[in-house]
Amino acid sequence: MICQDQPAPSMVFDVVIVGAGPAGLMAAVWMAQLNIKTLVIEMKSCRTLTGHADGLESRTLEILDSFGLAGIIWKESNRTMEVCLWHHDSRGDLCRDSVSPNCNPGLSRFQEVTLGQGRIEERLLEFIDKSPNVQIKWKTSPQELLIHQDLVDLHREHAVELRLDTDSVVRTKYLIGCDGAHSWVRKQLGLSLEGKSAGNGDWGVLDCIPTTDFPDIRKRCIIKSQAGNVMIIPREDNLVRFYVQLPARCATRFRRDRRPSVLLSILGDALKPYYLVTSHVEWCTIYTVGQRLCRDFSVQDRVFLSGDAVHTHSPKAGQGMNVSMQDTYNLGWKLASVLRGVATSAILRTYQEERLPVAERLIRFDRRMCLGICSGSDHASADRENLADFRDETTGLEETLSEENTTASGLSVTYPPNLLVTATRIPPSQPDKHGVLYCSTPHLAKNIVIGRRLPDVLVLCQSNSQPWYLQERLPSTGQWHLLVFGGDISKASQLQRVEALARQLTRPNSILAPLCMPGATTTVGSVAVYLIHSASRFDVQLMNLPPIFRPYDDRRGREYRRVFADNEGFAPGCGMAYSLYGIAPEGCVVLLRPDQHCSLVVPLEDADTLERFFSLFVPV
Amino acid sequence: MICQDQPAPSMVFDVVIVGAGPAGLMAAVWMAQLNIKTLVIEMKSCRTLTGHADGLESRTLEILDSFGLAGIIWKESNRTMEVCLWHHDSRGDLCRDSVSPNCNPGLSRFQEVTLGQGRIEERLLEFIDKSPNVQIKWKTSPQELLIHQDLVDLHREHAVELRLDTDSVVRTKYLIGCDGAHSWVRKQLGLSLEGKSAGNGDWGVLDCIPTTDFPDIRKRCIIKSQAGNVMIIPREDNLVRFYVQLPARCATRFRRDRRPSVLLSILGDALKPYYLVTSHVEWCTIYTVGQRLCRDFSVQDRVFLSGDAVHTHSPKAGQGMNVSMQDTYNLGWKLASVLRGVATSAILRTYQEERLPVAERLIRFDRRMCLGICSGSDHASADRENLADFRDETTGLEETLSEENTTASGLSVTYPPNLLVTATRIPPSQPDKHGVLYCSTPHLAKNIVIGRRLPDVLVLCQSNSQPWYLQERLPSTGQWHLLVFGGDISKASQLQRVEALARQLTRPNSILAPLCMPGATTTVGSVAVYLIHSASRFDVQLMNLPPIFRPYDDRRGREYRRVFADNEGFAPGCGMAYSLYGIAPEGCVVLLRPDQHCSLVVPLEDADTLERFFSLFVPV
Repeated sequence: MICQDQPAPSMVFDVVIVGAGPAGLMAAVWMAQLNIKTLVIEMKSCRTLTGHADGLESRTLEILDSFGLAGIIWKESNRTMEVCLWHHDSRGDLCRDSVSPNCNPGLSRFQEVTLGQGRIEERLLEFIDKSPNVQIKWKTSPQELLIHQDLVDLHREHAVELRLDTDSVVRTKYLIGCDGAHSWVRKQLGLSLEGKSAGNGDWGVLDCIPTTDFPDIRKRCIIKSQAGNVMIIPREDNLVRFYVQLPARCATRFRRDRRPSVLLSILGDALKPYYLVTSHVEWCTIYTVGQRLCRDFSVQDRVFLSGDAVHTHSPKAGQGMNVSMQDTYNLGWKLASVLRGVATSAILRTYQEERLPVAERLIRFDRRMCLGICSGSDHASADRENLADFRDETTGLEETLSEENTTASGLSVTYPPNLLVTATRIPPSQPDKHGVLYCSTPHLAKNIVIGRRLPDVLVLCQSNSQPWYLQERLPSTGQWHLLVFGGDISKASQLQRVEALARQLTRPNSILAPLCMPGATTTVGSVAVYLIHSASRFDVQLMNLPPIFRPYDDRRGREYRRVFADNEGFAPGCGMAYSLYGIAPEGCVVLLRPDQHCSLVVPLEDADTLERFFSLFVPV
Repeated sequence: MICQDQPAPSMVFDVVIVGAGPAGLMAAVWMAQLNIKTLVIEMKSCRTLTGHADGLESRTLEILDSFGLAGIIWKESNRTMEVCLWHHDSRGDLCRDSVSPNCNPGLSRFQEVTLGQGRIEERLLEFIDKSPNVQIKWKTSPQELLIHQDLVDLHREHAVELRLDTDSVVRTKYLIGCDGAHSWVRKQLGLSLEGKSAGNGDWGVLDCIPTTDFPDIRKRCIIKSQAGNVMIIPREDNLVRFYVQLPARCATRFRRDRRPSVLLSILGDALKPYYLVTSHVEWCTIYTVGQRLCRDFSVQDRVFLSGDAVHTHSPKAGQGMNVSMQDTYNLGWKLASVLRGVATSAILRTYQEERLPVAERLIRFDRRMCLGICSGSDHASADRENLADFRDETTGLEETLSEENTTASGLSVTYPPNLLVTATRIPPSQPDKHGVLYCSTPHLAKNIVIGRRLPDVLVLCQSNSQPWYLQERLPSTGQWHLLVFGGDISKASQLQRVEALARQLTRPNSILAPLCMPGATTTVGSVAVYLIHSASRFDVQLMNLPPIFRPYDDRRGREYRRVFADNEGFAPGCGMAYSLYGIAPEGCVVLLRPDQHCSLVVPLEDADTLERFFSLFVPV
């Protein structure tokens, strides 16, 4: 079918992204990485320079690292090791109630850090700038959005039309609205945020370099004080972010003149008897706590919303930027897979299926966090009494903080069964009406959760014994990752099972064979096959293994980093993969999506199920 | 005194560096870092593109990291974990004799890696390019060198004159000849390399991407074969470097036509029954083994020689680039200190005193290495018999390789007592006629070797509990580092000793007080003071400690990273500093030079000795 009003080719894109904040730039990073013709438009004239978000969770750093972007961000950022709870007692003394870890050792090779949003955007922009396929237009706003209904089901067509304030018109296959809480895109779609936009009080935010004798100024602190509750977030270099609860009259005054002295005065009182002054205020603002959610993340699988456009909440848990970037990290490879013709457009509905529950959870979590911090001013236990009507939502503040470092840090986000995430095999191995394939055998890998990002382990490369975090070998290239846990392949019987699997994966006329071939024409949607065995690496010869585990390419030579041994050596923590993953000696096959989330776990013999899984969304 | 023939100001430099290889660029990195007006001239038109050196030892990576340069080099490089010895037996089978570690876990946070010299130069050039004070002139050769003898003792004068092939004349205070084995600078000074320039045979060098079934192609290998001995060095990406011993007729042929097929043919024979082919040869050359040394590293403390200009040897141990960069790393801060007026020119003689013994050791080591590798072709034990006349120099090849990973890796280079390295206190605490101060009390820190780089340990930052490798907090800024090991300062008596020391360091009219002041006008030559205590960090309040440990600066705020606790937490290996360094409970003071080498160890009470140490070279 031919679209009659085809605009000039230069104004036709595969993807248009509205908004160049963290969500929009993460989407653009995917498109740059996968060579998708993309336009980013942003109202502002340049990236964020000061202020705004500043918290990066470990999962976000893992994601950035999968594009090679974590190194410098990790180095520039501030690592927050501990969180301290303080309160002003009735005699006016400031007392430290507790010091607890603010990180999650063992869960990730990264941990929570803080760094100004602008410096993160800068790194993402540097990455995007290297791609000839992604262009950014600053100082550009959309004026009109039109979805051509006659084309909307034909995913090869540029069904979405956008008129810009420059009076030019662009056509695109997909549009992503990453334009913040007041999202223009969302409004055009007739959608709105549900929930209260206020109700938990006003908070001032202040970024400055303080001079103080408060002993925990370089730790994350929550201070309950009659003068106003305060949160302290140490930042990169010597910056500190303060959240200051504002009495109504101060909020009114501050809204009017935006003078940091208002915040500094309350802060000074809250920290007494310690002193705090500053000669350098970098940024300040005010916000009103509210948790709001849009329940529609996409419209007709053509227009998608992400980040603040679909969920707004307080900044207290440092979650916003993370969930926003993780939204588009979830979406990017799916769009690219459809655009490259390696997946049907049916996979696009998983965006809403997967990210809406995450947003709902975030909203609930933030409400608990706010109640814990905003409540009263004297002592946590008293607060909880006062909040009896919210009791179901008020676990203690300390538990909430601890949850932030584990489940809320993005590491345990678990996508529900859908077209791209199988369910546990209880009914026979068949898809249900939603396309969910019931096939996984989770007892084969007890600690790998279907739908969740694969936990990281250290393994030794068979070819050169170098220790690698397995995740470092699973970059975001749009490829799927098929991990064959072959067990002790120094035993002939086990090696034969692995060899039989390799034959199955490459048998003619299968869907998998071309996907697993090293010379696949496009990386996006292909399958990289890895072998992680538990034999001594000295009892295994790489060149005796099936060729699928040592792919060869005329230009770059052999890929030597697809076979790993779960052996001790050269780094503490090596040799624990099978036990950490809970993998039985008979081994198993684990399929990871391009975003490192687990799709299925099946026995080594079950290539048929793999085949069936892909057949549900790979065009024939 | 006024210099009469003062040339135009634009052609006057503090430092001129001849040669932009690794040695020259490391010197330029120092000058860029310390804002010294510098000219680098290089005959070639650009940096190295392919081939040449490729081995980086852990100490070199530590040095690069002290300028913030290790991260990307570490990431791009190939880590060589294991070294394998093979030989062709009498039946023509290729047998693996041994696999041993090729790294030194625990000795450094880095390990040996390989990366093409050009990519290392590229990173150094990027660093230098950011400085407005250092300029590089490519395609420029020196024509004439003149040391103005009437000015040579006046270190404020530009006593060195250099005429360039562009017919311009430059004047400089100091000249560094980093112009390689055929050094023009060395020849101008009438100096030569001593030693044999040949004698151990000819070797071909080949960088290529091989296709092979040889199982250890991604490990470092030494293969003894009748066809010719071979060394395999895996490199970045999929490159491999081969060293191939050439029979005389092949050497002649290869010298004539430089066709890699000559090398590939020998290589193919040496690896039989395994196959090896390549479709991509990146670089090849031939060299003749010889060990040569120039015993004069400087002339009149105005002209300095470094790198291949003073020591040439085989590339077999991957040492050359390391020792060359370490030469100028030793020299750079000394020149800058004299130029900034914070040290007398007397310190410049320590360059020769410190680096000549390193070069001598390198030459001896390389000779052992060559004998081990070049000898015979059948079997190591037989070779050693044949080399009876060299017996004193032929420890086994395996021991030599192991030595490379420990002592030869630069980590254990120990500078002898001199003006900047004290000797152990046996005579009274007085300098001898060479300016050596006998004052150190090494039993206070049993495992810190005077004259050697400080071993690295993990410590927790007092202000925020972040684990740091101590070395990461000792960057190359031209500053000295005074480490106060205060012991358990939660005990009043121990805290009082630390407070008394702080008073001594800041008493009026001392040499140390202005050096230790945070507002010192120049970083170069000043002293950063650190406290590493063994109390629980929860029993210590940063703000209760003497101000010298928490310096304040109006612009950047407080320096929170000068006090560390030797406590467990957040990373394996924390809490071991006192025991690893062998520091007694009473603590001690350790002074490190700007290059992290230890100058002295004295008791907490002995600020007088510190004062005396600096008084020997700090101008009053």
